[in-house]
Amino acid sequence: MEIFFGQLVNADTIKFDAQESLHIVKVMRHKENDHIYAMDGSGVLFECILLTANSNNASAHILSSTPGWGTHNYDLTLAVCPTKNNERFEWLGEKATEIGLDTLAPIIGEKSERKVYKIDRMKRIVLSAAKQSLKAKIPTIEEPQSAIDFIKKAPSDALKLIAHCFEEEKISIKEALEKSPSDKIIILIGPEGDFSTREVDEALKNGFIPVHMGNSRLRTETAGLYAVFSVYNKYM
Amino acid sequence: MEIFFGQLVNADTIKFDAQESLHIVKVMRHKENDHIYAMDGSGVLFECILLTANSNNASAHILSSTPGWGTHNYDLTLAVCPTKNNERFEWLGEKATEIGLDTLAPIIGEKSERKVYKIDRMKRIVLSAAKQSLKAKIPTIEEPQSAIDFIKKAPSDALKLIAHCFEEEKISIKEALEKSPSDKIIILIGPEGDFSTREVDEALKNGFIPVHMGNSRLRTETAGLYAVFSVYNKYM
Repeated sequence: MEIFFGQLVNADTIKFDAQESLHIVKVMRHKENDHIYAMDGSGVLFECILLTANSNNASAHILSSTPGWGTHNYDLTLAVCPTKNNERFEWLGEKATEIGLDTLAPIIGEKSERKVYKIDRMKRIVLSAAKQSLKAKIPTIEEPQSAIDFIKKAPSDALKLIAHCFEEEKISIKEALEKSPSDKIIILIGPEGDFSTREVDEALKNGFIPVHMGNSRLRTETAGLYAVFSVYNKYM
Repeated sequence: MEIFFGQLVNADTIKFDAQESLHIVKVMRHKENDHIYAMDGSGVLFECILLTANSNNASAHILSSTPGWGTHNYDLTLAVCPTKNNERFEWLGEKATEIGLDTLAPIIGEKSERKVYKIDRMKRIVLSAAKQSLKAKIPTIEEPQSAIDFIKKAPSDALKLIAHCFEEEKISIKEALEKSPSDKIIILIGPEGDFSTREVDEALKNGFIPVHMGNSRLRTETAGLYAVFSVYNKYM
């Protein structure tokens, strides 16, 4: 099964951009009237018939829709400081999408070595991972923002967790997730050089709960993935 | 903190190979009588004094030993069919080491596309990951073997789980781990094309419990990492 990504033109029609059209027509060799599956990233799977098998501008007629296809029963925002090595951060985006993520928020910490982050490549990576893992909802990639801004804007009705390395009393991420009835979860992971004192103070003031991730010393991207796995595990 | 990898010559002395000696002397610029940390991969951390700062053949005198340094309280063997894309399998080795793994067994399934696997690179990868994550025990990388051979040889006193994609009643990996009192765990993950019927039958006959990993469609390497995370999570 393959899912193609397009934009809804109206309730009955979905159109594909040049790259996806090429893939449908030239690579997968679909002809007019072929049955195909498509999504627009919102979580709905469309069963379609290919209307125009144009390798530059294909479109399809929607036969039926399945909402919530490949989605999960939690709402997870992972806020992570991009790693120095970009490949590691992109790997996190791919894997987190495969498992089940709603929003990826790249965060610039006061001690982040990487102060600039462009989200275009990550958008393509999570789209590709969603298609590969047959999920009709594509995670939202937010524009980069400072940790302080993210903390201040975080909604009060979510379970908000922060993983920092300060010596301080913490509960495990597992326990924090088990204790909370909230299905709306925000997890904040710091940069390689950790958060600043000001950032941690601001997070505590705004209702973030400090959590640890066990005895292993995890890299930023591994900690991020462990957070996603922990949420997925709770809802299994 | 940096840990160097060497071989014990006797109870008091550890020697380093040419590559590690170069790293100690030329890259880290250690001099004779410097305090350094070393390990031989068995799980013991050695606090040492550098005896000979020779960039080809360094050695150190052991001052004190800390057994079980950076280790965990379970014994996990992950048996996985190497992925077609080698980088994905190597990534799994790195991440699994970071979290906590004892043995990685590359398995050749009857439907594996990759029938040959060389373990040299993986040995270097897990060594490097162990050093990076400050673990004094390096996972053992077994020589590749067929799934059937691995299944037949698996010890009877371990909790043995198999993740396959056959439509069959399964419990979640989380539930299987929670139910079992055994700290010796073996998890078998199939190739991209799944196990053969013969392999699954043989596994069931040998006491393997079929498990699922939730609703997400995970790639082989993601399934492998989720297995390691699940065990780590149980012991948190």
